[in-house]
Amino acid sequence: MKYSIIAIGDELLIGQVIDTNSGYIERYMAPYGWEALLTQVVHDDAEQIRHAIDVAFEQTDCVLMTGGLGPTKDDITKGTLCDYFGGTLVYDNDVARNVEHVMTERHLQVNEYTRTQAMVPSSCRVIQNEVGTAPLMWFERDGKVLVSMPGVPHETQTMLGRAVAPQLLQRFNDGEALAFRTAIITGITESDLAMRLDEYERQLPASLHLAYLPQPGIVRLRLTGNANDAAQLNELIDKQFQSLVEQVGDLVIATEDITLPAILGNHLRERHLTLATAESCTGGNIAHQITTIAGSSDYFLGSVVSYANSVKTGLLGVDPRDIERHGAVSREVVEQMAAGACAAMHADCAIATSGIAGPTGGTKEKPVGTVWMAARCGDKTKSIVRQFAGDRARVIDRATTEAQLLLLRLLVSV
Amino acid sequence: MKYSIIAIGDELLIGQVIDTNSGYIERYMAPYGWEALLTQVVHDDAEQIRHAIDVAFEQTDCVLMTGGLGPTKDDITKGTLCDYFGGTLVYDNDVARNVEHVMTERHLQVNEYTRTQAMVPSSCRVIQNEVGTAPLMWFERDGKVLVSMPGVPHETQTMLGRAVAPQLLQRFNDGEALAFRTAIITGITESDLAMRLDEYERQLPASLHLAYLPQPGIVRLRLTGNANDAAQLNELIDKQFQSLVEQVGDLVIATEDITLPAILGNHLRERHLTLATAESCTGGNIAHQITTIAGSSDYFLGSVVSYANSVKTGLLGVDPRDIERHGAVSREVVEQMAAGACAAMHADCAIATSGIAGPTGGTKEKPVGTVWMAARCGDKTKSIVRQFAGDRARVIDRATTEAQLLLLRLLVSV
Repeated sequence: MKYSIIAIGDELLIGQVIDTNSGYIERYMAPYGWEALLTQVVHDDAEQIRHAIDVAFEQTDCVLMTGGLGPTKDDITKGTLCDYFGGTLVYDNDVARNVEHVMTERHLQVNEYTRTQAMVPSSCRVIQNEVGTAPLMWFERDGKVLVSMPGVPHETQTMLGRAVAPQLLQRFNDGEALAFRTAIITGITESDLAMRLDEYERQLPASLHLAYLPQPGIVRLRLTGNANDAAQLNELIDKQFQSLVEQVGDLVIATEDITLPAILGNHLRERHLTLATAESCTGGNIAHQITTIAGSSDYFLGSVVSYANSVKTGLLGVDPRDIERHGAVSREVVEQMAAGACAAMHADCAIATSGIAGPTGGTKEKPVGTVWMAARCGDKTKSIVRQFAGDRARVIDRATTEAQLLLLRLLVSV
Repeated sequence: MKYSIIAIGDELLIGQVIDTNSGYIERYMAPYGWEALLTQVVHDDAEQIRHAIDVAFEQTDCVLMTGGLGPTKDDITKGTLCDYFGGTLVYDNDVARNVEHVMTERHLQVNEYTRTQAMVPSSCRVIQNEVGTAPLMWFERDGKVLVSMPGVPHETQTMLGRAVAPQLLQRFNDGEALAFRTAIITGITESDLAMRLDEYERQLPASLHLAYLPQPGIVRLRLTGNANDAAQLNELIDKQFQSLVEQVGDLVIATEDITLPAILGNHLRERHLTLATAESCTGGNIAHQITTIAGSSDYFLGSVVSYANSVKTGLLGVDPRDIERHGAVSREVVEQMAAGACAAMHADCAIATSGIAGPTGGTKEKPVGTVWMAARCGDKTKSIVRQFAGDRARVIDRATTEAQLLLLRLLVSV
């Protein structure tokens, strides 16, 4: 089933807020064979919203809309939908009760603005918002469906799972299946990988499609297929995926679509090893990424973010003479940081970083982007230095990835 | 000047990769009075790309396109643009030399796939990609312009600044000015704020527009204006913005569009105070957010991410009997963590968190989402407990924000 998304909000078009709802909806619906054909992001503007609906309905029978439902004056979606689908705005007692219930739960007072949430187009079927005040609205015309959902990510995510997705799956049941498999590759560029897979791609059946999704340090290979028969499709894609993994065997670090910290966590858990980090330029981002994984407390003990040199010497036991001699951004210091993290937190393994994230602080010998990274496991230590291009955020991001890959390589080789 | 964006890539429509290019372009162009009217996200599919260009050109005279230019087989943008604007694909020597130069700099070999980057439509003007291999292409027809840029965020960002934006500003010079001002508010809900600003909004001139951008714990108020006369517009918006700030005076924590860690950093720098964090459930995310700010090393010393209780007692000096008696998620422990962070890292101020991010680990008394937070400055400590709704990522995110707001309130009151 193909559908469209329309995300509404001035804030989404000046880059102040990134539209994360569309990605969430796409990831949630994909396993059911639902594929987004088009996403449009438009302003809180009646004409633009109408036009976007026309464009979406021209190409798909189902439109999922997010945003523009807040109680303040800049949100005009509800009136526009009422004009588009006909009818008038009417007071809905159930919605009013729900608004009061949600506000009371949050220890907030209902006011004139929250009360307007109870006005809904007579042409829609209301889906009560169980976690917010803006009601969801289901419109239907000429066999086409539009569902309007709130812009608040938490509300859209909750209500998509509890009500919208189940009702959509029941309403549109065309039987077309979609399947995908993902392999995560490291240690090769996108184009070298493409060279290596040239013959493989030539022999792929027309119903399957291979996509390259490069990220710094990693390439995700995604094999996708569409077909009427789900069982047949799954058999075909499994066979082709196995063959793909064989072609790039030594470079594959995962055969499911998980993040790098999850891959690292699986390795640590399997080996019953604990981990600590010692971070200077990454500023806690490695620890943050590792702890996004539920259950990471099984192997992750903690981190010392040693931004100041006094913390490197005080908590991690780095020799101040080595900082003096070699600088804080050096092999000597980063290896001592890794050893110090293991010692201070009684961990089996450690990752350490020390670098110059910029925009200032660079020198001729160590320009902005220079990062020393060390990984330690037992009494084995590996360290590397890299020169990352780009701004501060990119240097932090690259170092966070490369340092985890360094430990992953060390774990596999131990 | 109004323009459209088209982002191309299958990966953007299955939620595997979030389109950050559009937001970057919008933020970059806004100060020049350039306003994105519409963003479309489409698949690597010729018909869809053609259709998106038609829709975009119908509404705007300028289209900025990102993605679909990689060397692998799933990228078909170049051929599609060649069909759309006419001409044939021709070998471009300058592009070939640039590809070789970039690959050599990266210590990589040019192969058959990277070589295809040198084939470009005869109907376009090439803009050399100084930081990647995919050339940028400028197409022009009937007074309308389309610029095709790479999908790699780093490349798009660099080349937008170095070449695309300057050339667009020269090509389209319609003189319409856009201005905006942002105030950041805390301690009030969006709808209560709207009540408070009801009269203010009524008196706003038609050329100005107020938008509410709520985030957990914070509301951004954005005042925007369009006019032909830039000087007049700026005078008007400054006057109205000042009046807005007066109306919500006590709740305003910033009058520019900066992040919470930047606001906190400004307060610390002004008062010559240093900061450390002690993080359990936020797992280093507070330290990470603080160190995204360039120059944060002026006031930020470091963090102890004490995921394991042994790290809370070992590095932060938390009394193990208090962990036993009250649990790790308690006022006693989080206040000792804050004090321990100040002591261990010789900091003036500290932020500490301890909570249950979930999805497991909750109890009847302390369900998932329970987070204790403490802020310390000198010998003053403030601590609060919150119950955050939502998944693990949301609990971490909310606690990261609330803990920083707690220190901000303490700093202002000291």
